[in-house]
Amino acid sequence: MIGNWLLPEGLADTLPAEARRIEELRRKLLDLYRTYGFEMVAPPLVEYIDSLLSGTGGDLNLSTCKLVDQLSGRTLGVRADMTTQVTRIDAHLLNRAGVTRLCYCGTVLHARPAGLLSSRELLQIGAEIYGHAGFEADIEVLQLALESTRLAGVREPRLDLCHPGLVRAILDADAGAAAHAETIYAILRDKDVPALVELSGRVEGVRAETWQALRKLPDLYGGADVLARARQELPLLPGVAAALDALGQLIAALDGVSVGVDLADVGGYGYHSGVTFSIYAEGWHDALVRGGRYDDVSRAFGRARPATGFSLDLRKLAAGLPPAAPSRAIRAPWGQDPALVQALRSLRAAGEVVVQNLPGHEHDQDEFVCDRELALKDGAWTLRTL
Amino acid sequence: MIGNWLLPEGLADTLPAEARRIEELRRKLLDLYRTYGFEMVAPPLVEYIDSLLSGTGGDLNLSTCKLVDQLSGRTLGVRADMTTQVTRIDAHLLNRAGVTRLCYCGTVLHARPAGLLSSRELLQIGAEIYGHAGFEADIEVLQLALESTRLAGVREPRLDLCHPGLVRAILDADAGAAAHAETIYAILRDKDVPALVELSGRVEGVRAETWQALRKLPDLYGGADVLARARQELPLLPGVAAALDALGQLIAALDGVSVGVDLADVGGYGYHSGVTFSIYAEGWHDALVRGGRYDDVSRAFGRARPATGFSLDLRKLAAGLPPAAPSRAIRAPWGQDPALVQALRSLRAAGEVVVQNLPGHEHDQDEFVCDRELALKDGAWTLRTL
Repeated sequence: MIGNWLLPEGLADTLPAEARRIEELRRKLLDLYRTYGFEMVAPPLVEYIDSLLSGTGGDLNLSTCKLVDQLSGRTLGVRADMTTQVTRIDAHLLNRAGVTRLCYCGTVLHARPAGLLSSRELLQIGAEIYGHAGFEADIEVLQLALESTRLAGVREPRLDLCHPGLVRAILDADAGAAAHAETIYAILRDKDVPALVELSGRVEGVRAETWQALRKLPDLYGGADVLARARQELPLLPGVAAALDALGQLIAALDGVSVGVDLADVGGYGYHSGVTFSIYAEGWHDALVRGGRYDDVSRAFGRARPATGFSLDLRKLAAGLPPAAPSRAIRAPWGQDPALVQALRSLRAAGEVVVQNLPGHEHDQDEFVCDRELALKDGAWTLRTL
Repeated sequence: MIGNWLLPEGLADTLPAEARRIEELRRKLLDLYRTYGFEMVAPPLVEYIDSLLSGTGGDLNLSTCKLVDQLSGRTLGVRADMTTQVTRIDAHLLNRAGVTRLCYCGTVLHARPAGLLSSRELLQIGAEIYGHAGFEADIEVLQLALESTRLAGVREPRLDLCHPGLVRAILDADAGAAAHAETIYAILRDKDVPALVELSGRVEGVRAETWQALRKLPDLYGGADVLARARQELPLLPGVAAALDALGQLIAALDGVSVGVDLADVGGYGYHSGVTFSIYAEGWHDALVRGGRYDDVSRAFGRARPATGFSLDLRKLAAGLPPAAPSRAIRAPWGQDPALVQALRSLRAAGEVVVQNLPGHEHDQDEFVCDRELALKDGAWTLRTL
């Protein structure tokens, strides 16, 4: 019996004040996505592991908790990300020819925490546009992501852009480097230049200009001028030029929005194919929102569809915001007098919180601040300020 | 790649129209519980199996999917029910002396479907009162459960009451019968009188009056008059009398509500200690809401607290309701004209759904019924009926 109330590492209960704030954010954001025409869907919490990991990299596999399906004997995964599930819904269930806008909100579980301070349970909310390969869809998704943070009350969100096609083009042009792709990605993710230098002295068969390009990448971050610097400092392979062009087009269309560029930001689950973005803000040690284009995931479901979208963790968002104000409420006695019952019904129908004191508990405290009381005065139930 | 989009048995995607209806019900019910002073909490999706099953019976264990925690090596369970989790929060985290009202809404997973037509993933919503042993808390919970179904639009909900203390008293009074408790519970759950007769012919050491009492139980259902019949037909052991008294007190307090009594309704996860109830309605093959008193669960967390509450599956509730009406929306062209951007912003801020046609997709269809269009007329962006 000892310690029955202890929770596993990286998992926690959400208590009333925090739960209410998360619920308010959830509604605000889902309502926002709806006004843009995003339709809500809800994929299942667990699926066959093969479906769940379709079109994704090894990182997502390591993050996914597995269990055995008692009905089929096959391996199920508890989702660690909802994007592939929503892609499956677009590709197969809805099966529309044109543009489809989908949004969702649900719990995802990570087998291991993504970072030192990360939770293993996230409340992922996101929005995705399928069926349009043009930059207009990326713009809509980016604006919606920024609007999400503003609506939540995040001050001065900072938008960073990247394009995984750039690093991929550099590695694909050099078979010697491609053989060490995973190590190189891990090093770039940490912007660990000394590790890159160490690797270049240890590994053979990689061209000198490839090492040179890779060593430039961690420095290629800053404002929109990074694109011009990249054109001078990186080898202008077709994939590199295409990535820089796509970033330039998006920055031009985002006229008026302050944009950062970070060409070594290769984080995520490895399914992105085009421009990716992250939103950072003071109060959160890591990216608050991540998104981008992932045209190749749907191919794993047998139907190639352009796709772009973003997601964020509502719990993480709420944790960095100032605490919610306590709720006002009305205190009322317990009783079955029809006039009291009617008074309770009217107040609650008007949205008031009315807490009935159960007999013997007239002096209890809870999270509500009772600033009024329903009391019998001259034969009528009347509100009285406390 | 073949079949990547197939889902495991008993699991399904929720598509837009259904997802929206579930979301609307979710908000309505959580808002209702809030007006009664129930505070929302959110326990984690997975916990150590020992915590998750504290104070419950073997049925919940069989329903719970297990996985290995990669951080501790211990066994985790994906919750199959949230009531014990919320009880743990009341007992340890909040640790208040007085009455605490808590509500919650979250996904639960069943290792095997509970019935032939049941889903393995439920969206459980519920409300619980801790700290008050009197019938007033049961009344509040019962009224809230009935109000939940009415608010959702369920026609003529039927309330059935039971008390597990009654069968328990009959079995406890006869050690021979108590030895076959599990079999007897399973038979009563199915109201399978022939199986009871067969068992009585096969098993020795059970007193004749015990068999007689057990055989009466499946017939003891109907209106409030069942209580009077039970007093005549059942042995008036102290536990039996106490159970009948508790039921009688509740029925008297529920003046005006039509109540059924079903003394053999021993379903559930085996943690109830007092009056239990189920709400049935046409359109649902099984109980829509289940609840009752479970004073003994918190003892497993080292702090005995009276407890009563109810829960229901929002997906199941939504599935039996008439389909939601399609959503009205406004169609708008794509563009970056500041006047258009401003018009879109105003309409969306007013709660309108405005779907922008991405270039080349001017004739796409989705779930929204576009009955108006935002178009440029005499130099101004104007709404036009379609």
